[in-house]
Amino acid sequence: RGEMAKSTQLIDNEVFRAYATYTAIVLLKMMLMSLVTAYFRLTRKAFANPEDTASFGKGESAKKYLRTDPDVERVRRGHLNDLENIVPFVGIGLLYALSGPELSTALLHFRIFTGARILHTFAYLIPLPQPGRGLSWAVGYSVTFSMAYKVLKTAWLL
Amino acid sequence: RGEMAKSTQLIDNEVFRAYATYTAIVLLKMMLMSLVTAYFRLTRKAFANPEDTASFGKGESAKKYLRTDPDVERVRRGHLNDLENIVPFVGIGLLYALSGPELSTALLHFRIFTGARILHTFAYLIPLPQPGRGLSWAVGYSVTFSMAYKVLKTAWLL
Amino acid sequence: RGEMAKSTQLIDNEVFRAYATYTAIVLLKMMLMSLVTAYFRLTRKAFANPEDTASFGKGESAKKYLRTDPDVERVRRGHLNDLENIVPFVGIGLLYALSGPELSTALLHFRIFTGARILHTFAYLIPLPQPGRGLSWAVGYSVTFSMAYKVLKTAWLL
Repeated sequence: RGEMAKSTQLIDNEVFRAYATYTAIVLLKMMLMSLVTAYFRLTRKAFANPEDTASFGKGESAKKYLRTDPDVERVRRGHLNDLENIVPFVGIGLLYALSGPELSTALLHFRIFTGARILHTFAYLIPLPQPGRGLSWAVGYSVTFSMAYKVLKTAWLL
Repeated sequence: RGEMAKSTQLIDNEVFRAYATYTAIVLLKMMLMSLVTAYFRLTRKAFANPEDTASFGKGESAKKYLRTDPDVERVRRGHLNDLENIVPFVGIGLLYALSGPELSTALLHFRIFTGARILHTFAYLIPLPQPGRGLSWAVGYSVTFSMAYKVLKTAWLL
Repeated sequence: RGEMAKSTQLIDNEVFRAYATYTAIVLLKMMLMSLVTAYFRLTRKAFANPEDTASFGKGESAKKYLRTDPDVERVRRGHLNDLENIVPFVGIGLLYALSGPELSTALLHFRIFTGARILHTFAYLIPLPQPGRGLSWAVGYSVTFSMAYKVLKTAWLL
């Protein structure tokens, strides 16, 4: 069909292909946080829902696993920080990819953001001493601001 | 205008129409969690902000409603789980819809994901015994991974 | 390249340009919540991670800053509320912009949503007495529903 061909042309655009690649990577990285949370919940035996502790027995013996654990809470903070930062990247990045940037400039933005968020995750989970986590956060944040500036300069219609 | 016609062609593409339909449905479902939270906050009288309890009187009589409630916290966990899983679906699903999949394959992905997330919400809110919630979560998670694989295979440009 | 030209035509579409402008604005507004959180964490000396308090000394002297603070928690609730509401706007708004609405109707939706979310942030942070925050939330919520209705009417393919 004609329309089918038309819409697949977007993914033939090199900047859009780069956007698609890096967006898939950072979203998959964010999704991995769910598995890390599950791993810590199971190994630390720290759950949020009574039905999740049913396999450990009934009554008081299971109730003690309804608790917070520092490692679980740390992963959850990292996951929420991903949501707060990767959502703007995905949204602004799409508009940026459609605003006609140079491929090399776009790749620079996508690569630095993705590298910074992967570093941020390691800095949060190991954890590294500050300002490791803070700097990796700031780098990703700045990249998103830079893309937003290009979007607003190109598209501005209030 | 010519460009207007051009951009509406995307929504004429059947895979994109399917993506639009299921994305709107899962995002509306996620938005409903706000109303469910409000319902439980009002019926359980459990609020997070002092200004929300002002209508219950002043001072100590209102202060006692500044508390957490197990039902409210359960809905909030379900809402956050939606954010963690529906955000990757919306982002990766858009790229997937533009990567030229067969309509039948795309519909299969979108339908299973949407069904799994609706089941997940019921499993969380009723609540159903495990592994009901865990399985519905894993099904949606796997569908998103499958779409991400297709996106990376089609678009890969690092 | 031909494809490059094709993809930049999307950003030449006036409705899409309006979408890009308002989406960049609300996502930047959401990102500002991170800076507000950091400001309150530093001035209230209330941190979530031990490594963040290392500069205040070692052992017990630093440990006392690992605490929650009402102002920090308030900003974090506002940030999470942004995520819960701006994510649906960005996703549904994109589909809406591609569904061929009138420019004036689209602008009305985008402007009201953006204004309502800015008001919501002020209502949360000052804080304003209710129903200030509740109404600004409901206005943004309704705009997103209205866009979802248009998307489902135009794209419906289940």
